[in-house]
Amino acid sequence: MTGQRSDARRNYSRILAVAEEEVARHGAAASLEQVARIAGVGSATVRRHFPTRQALLEAVFQERVQALCERADRLSRTDDSRTALLEWLHDLVRYAVSARGLADVLAYEPPTDTPAGAPTDTPADTDASARHSCGAALEDAAAPLLRRALREEVVRPGVTFHDLLTLAVGIALATEHHAEPAIQADRLFTLTVEGLSPSP
Amino acid sequence: MTGQRSDARRNYSRILAVAEEEVARHGAAASLEQVARIAGVGSATVRRHFPTRQALLEAVFQERVQALCERADRLSRTDDSRTALLEWLHDLVRYAVSARGLADVLAYEPPTDTPAGAPTDTPADTDASARHSCGAALEDAAAPLLRRALREEVVRPGVTFHDLLTLAVGIALATEHHAEPAIQADRLFTLTVEGLSPSP
Repeated sequence: MTGQRSDARRNYSRILAVAEEEVARHGAAASLEQVARIAGVGSATVRRHFPTRQALLEAVFQERVQALCERADRLSRTDDSRTALLEWLHDLVRYAVSARGLADVLAYEPPTDTPAGAPTDTPADTDASARHSCGAALEDAAAPLLRRALREEVVRPGVTFHDLLTLAVGIALATEHHAEPAIQADRLFTLTVEGLSPSP
Repeated sequence: MTGQRSDARRNYSRILAVAEEEVARHGAAASLEQVARIAGVGSATVRRHFPTRQALLEAVFQERVQALCERADRLSRTDDSRTALLEWLHDLVRYAVSARGLADVLAYEPPTDTPAGAPTDTPADTDASARHSCGAALEDAAAPLLRRALREEVVRPGVTFHDLLTLAVGIALATEHHAEPAIQADRLFTLTVEGLSPSP
């Protein structure tokens, strides 16, 4: 049993390492068959560890998402609530622009509930946090920043985390094919924060 | 020769009609092989009329783009320059949200020059305007609206048509998988116009 478990753990790590390279190269549309081939496992093994493409992508981006969550935590302890929220959001935009495929993952709304009858045959040694939605993790981390900014009225009333996430994702997706994605994304971020044409 | 030309024209129309249906169903990733199969022509015939996927998609969206151009023309003759520009931009967002694949087409920057050695074997009877980039057509049509808004200082200084187009595309791409794309896109449009958090 121990041998089987450590085999599964090794497969999990190998699949994830290959997936990271393939997603960096081809974005969210990276071929899962190709991942299986390079990792030297069968497609069924990939599916056992990562039942959906979304699950694999979320595992690939887990470290970046974790870094964004830690950044939110640090910023929530700084003084200026507007700067804190906007710096975090700017980081999110930059990450989404630089990490091919992350915006695609975030473009899908996280499921609101774990479906009844969720897979119970998933090996116990796969990393449980990989199955935790990237969007939900970011929402939890950024909530204190947004709450404080709303309370202090330094962000437009009624703005939700979902609005912020969707705008960041939109900027990343729309600039992906541009000659200078990072520069154009920065421009659009500033325009979105300041407003194209605020009411007189 | 006349017979060959009218055959080519018939093929062109049939391919375009099938492509419209397939793109409405599957978005910009619609299979060109499937289009050829349903239209009852070979892949080579599709490629002769539409050398690239982009060329086919631009032909598919030509009518919508034309309607947006006419709308810009009417709005340029109205009094309020801010309302004129924002109404047009809102229409662009709505179109991009409702027409699957249009945002993908617009996400690619139009080539700045027609490459030397551009295809000369394209049948003379394909519609030349189909090869005119959607983005360039929209830019020409919206330029007077944006120029007037900049002159009257009702839009943020330095805003370019490219900024407006990219934001509209981003809103459409980021809301595509949402439960209510049109409603969420309207929210984000308003936020982008008014600003998430304008400088104090």
